[in-house]
Amino acid sequence: MAFPGYGGAPPAQDPLYGYFSAVAGQDGQISADELQQCLTHSGIAGSYKPFNLEACRLMISMLDRDMTNSMGFNEFKELWQVLNSWKNTFASYDRDRSGTVEGHELQYAITSMGYNLSPQAMNIIMKRYSTNGRIGFDDFITCCVRLRALTDQYRRRDTTQTGTATFQYDDFIQVTMST
Amino acid sequence: MAFPGYGGAPPAQDPLYGYFSAVAGQDGQISADELQQCLTHSGIAGSYKPFNLEACRLMISMLDRDMTNSMGFNEFKELWQVLNSWKNTFASYDRDRSGTVEGHELQYAITSMGYNLSPQAMNIIMKRYSTNGRIGFDDFITCCVRLRALTDQYRRRDTTQTGTATFQYDDFIQVTMST
Repeated sequence: MAFPGYGGAPPAQDPLYGYFSAVAGQDGQISADELQQCLTHSGIAGSYKPFNLEACRLMISMLDRDMTNSMGFNEFKELWQVLNSWKNTFASYDRDRSGTVEGHELQYAITSMGYNLSPQAMNIIMKRYSTNGRIGFDDFITCCVRLRALTDQYRRRDTTQTGTATFQYDDFIQVTMST
Repeated sequence: MAFPGYGGAPPAQDPLYGYFSAVAGQDGQISADELQQCLTHSGIAGSYKPFNLEACRLMISMLDRDMTNSMGFNEFKELWQVLNSWKNTFASYDRDRSGTVEGHELQYAITSMGYNLSPQAMNIIMKRYSTNGRIGFDDFITCCVRLRALTDQYRRRDTTQTGTATFQYDDFIQVTMST
């Protein structure tokens, strides 16, 4: 946005656009491996291990509303915000900066994000994403990405908002195999 | 089994039990990282890249009927058979032994396993598991494991066998986050 009457100082370019455009092709879209490069260069993971390719694939899938399997700049900005918020949540539990949190801390984090899950579901998630009882940053993010994507897809089919949804087999496979 | 009357020649020990018992603890169960060691030592992947930890986690989840997140010897034998059959399917498409198959070959393989999926579902699966248009052995196996586990879970809820199943939200998350 320029400021008319004040000489029109050029707006500070969005720094995110720099990371994005460095890897995006002519079409302004990035694929999973380009997203991985982009996130690594941007340093969003901070001192944590950069995201693996599988996590990046899931991030694209989570926001891929047009089913192109790639990500435009607006989706990238949305991803950036959500990743930052998850990183802050993770860091708030990783007080000793070991790069891991405990299983029950993952449960607190999930609850703090507004999910209302049974102890059984929490237990499945905890076991699925922990290694020797602890959860690394990349597994934490993968868990957050999948939980959000699956919940979004479920909500679209839970048309009466009663916590019950019906899936045709093919639709179920499409939803679950893309996340 | 001994052979009474023939001097009771010791039975050839099941070679699979050797691989299994080398990593199983006192409880006769193996976890995902022990399964990874076990499968790597057994050489089941042949000249293909050994299975990654994520694939091993999914294999345990696929057969984990008692929800212990570990695998006993009988489940290991069942896994062994199914992995061998998938490896043979993969090898039959990987004629040049590059360790990868093409996207459309994954689709033929899935159809040959008896799955009846729409072009949209096939496309999602193909994109999800391919890197630069090709599917590596470990991604192929991960895809097979998930497709089987998800279909098994779906069938249990499709009580009328009509290709329609209803999931409560918590149940949906349990099924999808464990696969």
